[in-house]
Amino acid sequence: MKKLLNDPADLVAESLRGVERAHPELRIDHENRILYRADAPVSGKVGLLSGGGSGHEPAHAGFIGPGMLDAVCAGEVFTSPVPDQMAEATKNIDGGAGVLHLVWNYTGDVMNFDMAAELAAAETDTEVQAVVMNDDVAVEDSLFTAGRRGTGAAIAVEKIVGAAADQGRSLSELADLARRVNDSSRSMGMALTSCTVPAKGTPTFDLPEDEIEIGIGIHGEPGRRRVPLTSAHEIAQMLVDPILADRDFTGGEGVFVFVNGMGATPQLELYLMYNEVAALLDKAGIVPVRSLVGPYVTSLDMAGCLVSITRLDDDMLRLWDAPVATAGLRWGM
Amino acid sequence: MKKLLNDPADLVAESLRGVERAHPELRIDHENRILYRADAPVSGKVGLLSGGGSGHEPAHAGFIGPGMLDAVCAGEVFTSPVPDQMAEATKNIDGGAGVLHLVWNYTGDVMNFDMAAELAAAETDTEVQAVVMNDDVAVEDSLFTAGRRGTGAAIAVEKIVGAAADQGRSLSELADLARRVNDSSRSMGMALTSCTVPAKGTPTFDLPEDEIEIGIGIHGEPGRRRVPLTSAHEIAQMLVDPILADRDFTGGEGVFVFVNGMGATPQLELYLMYNEVAALLDKAGIVPVRSLVGPYVTSLDMAGCLVSITRLDDDMLRLWDAPVATAGLRWGM
Repeated sequence: MKKLLNDPADLVAESLRGVERAHPELRIDHENRILYRADAPVSGKVGLLSGGGSGHEPAHAGFIGPGMLDAVCAGEVFTSPVPDQMAEATKNIDGGAGVLHLVWNYTGDVMNFDMAAELAAAETDTEVQAVVMNDDVAVEDSLFTAGRRGTGAAIAVEKIVGAAADQGRSLSELADLARRVNDSSRSMGMALTSCTVPAKGTPTFDLPEDEIEIGIGIHGEPGRRRVPLTSAHEIAQMLVDPILADRDFTGGEGVFVFVNGMGATPQLELYLMYNEVAALLDKAGIVPVRSLVGPYVTSLDMAGCLVSITRLDDDMLRLWDAPVATAGLRWGM
Repeated sequence: MKKLLNDPADLVAESLRGVERAHPELRIDHENRILYRADAPVSGKVGLLSGGGSGHEPAHAGFIGPGMLDAVCAGEVFTSPVPDQMAEATKNIDGGAGVLHLVWNYTGDVMNFDMAAELAAAETDTEVQAVVMNDDVAVEDSLFTAGRRGTGAAIAVEKIVGAAADQGRSLSELADLARRVNDSSRSMGMALTSCTVPAKGTPTFDLPEDEIEIGIGIHGEPGRRRVPLTSAHEIAQMLVDPILADRDFTGGEGVFVFVNGMGATPQLELYLMYNEVAALLDKAGIVPVRSLVGPYVTSLDMAGCLVSITRLDDDMLRLWDAPVATAGLRWGM
């Protein structure tokens, strides 16, 4: 294993120290591994909390800031944070309008966010609602989930709901909106290579030099099938076809197309993939109106990509375009 | 070789098609492989041109836009663009105030930008000045350079000079500023692994599983030395010590610290490296006031990092903070 680290057991803690030094606009509780907007709680605004295992950077901490999340709980690599952590964060971002948990659908996360909501409500009367994101069409259940996994849709959900929270919308309205964006999104990913979890030190799975895995999860969970290494053109089809088969993406204000790098794939290749994906959408009469290309939801050093598509209505489109200031996404301020 | 592409010969051309689809704010001349701000030339403003081989994304095209570059010429992977391309771009971004070439110090690029300036001057009277960036302290001459290589400093130079061009500063003033930022910057990189150039299909160099290369170039050119794989703490020292030995970074308004991922290194590790680098600067009495952590000047799928430090004066600091709207760097608009 070749990685830039000291003791693998300290990787997350030391990385958080780096985040703190590089981002004075965040406040970090190292004991509880919670990252906050420095000005949280924002009075009168619904607090938005997400989080999950580490190893997906810039998700999750890269999306904290005005126009997006108020706080994030960081777990160990590919491991859910614990309920106490989440309850503490929940209480600290309640500006009086309640807190929305934006939960990526993995069994541990869902269970722990659930317990955290109960803890927070019992201790401080904080009103909490939760929306579970489950956009991955690859598998119906997986190693880590009941139901579909949450992957690329989180970027659209967190950005759009973050902007709506800034407008002063209520907790219920935001939960509805989060569900609407999640329901409007579908994703599917693929891996060229495995990732290597530092604590283990060897690749999570073996993938022969001439094979790729279609429908991979963001922790290296098995996908739909292994196929021989093929062209980007054919790979795009293997990702886009199941997405389009699962939902109607025509109409509305067009779609947001997200081609995500899994960690080790160069942008030169990701833009080539974007070209293939957009061409397939053209053929299907689907109109990309916003896009994002790059490593946003990674799986450590996995090579590969994930395609995520969200059908936008005019409300979502305006909220996507609204100002945001996070380490991972920034415009308008 | 496992990569997301069709025919390796078409990689750059097809990737540029993807950039065009994803970035309507750019205008692309596919025949000449030039990427422009859609509104270039900007009347009365000095035009800023850079470019170089592909494979370093988001450098170079990710830095086109208000507050940064007006155009970029794209070469094949790790190959300089040609003089005709650069001359065409130069003519098309001249808004009447001349054009500044920001040249990364590689022999082919320097020679070709030089010829392009002569061509453009002969054909259209466009006034051109050029500044060569050569911040890499690792080696004095290299496989691809006479003198030091240009690496991380380009981000600071292009951002700061881009903001100054927006203020309406003259060609000579901008050239002076570019030289000042370059002179204030020093960089050094390291590789955990080689990269694989698609047209070749095999790793550029062999690096055993238990060795790393200190002082690597951004095309996989040899560095200073190979050493056994060691901790991030020791690696940071091997990069920061030669940088600090080469220039005084105390005083002024503090420093800009840039920890750049070479392409395949997770952000979790890069932030850990940032923590190590910043701690070493603290010890040396050097004050980081701005930072950037992530893959900005990559070397395809190489794993590793590059540390770049720029001493800021108050003019540079204000210009760094000024609004910028590019695919790779964006804030304030």
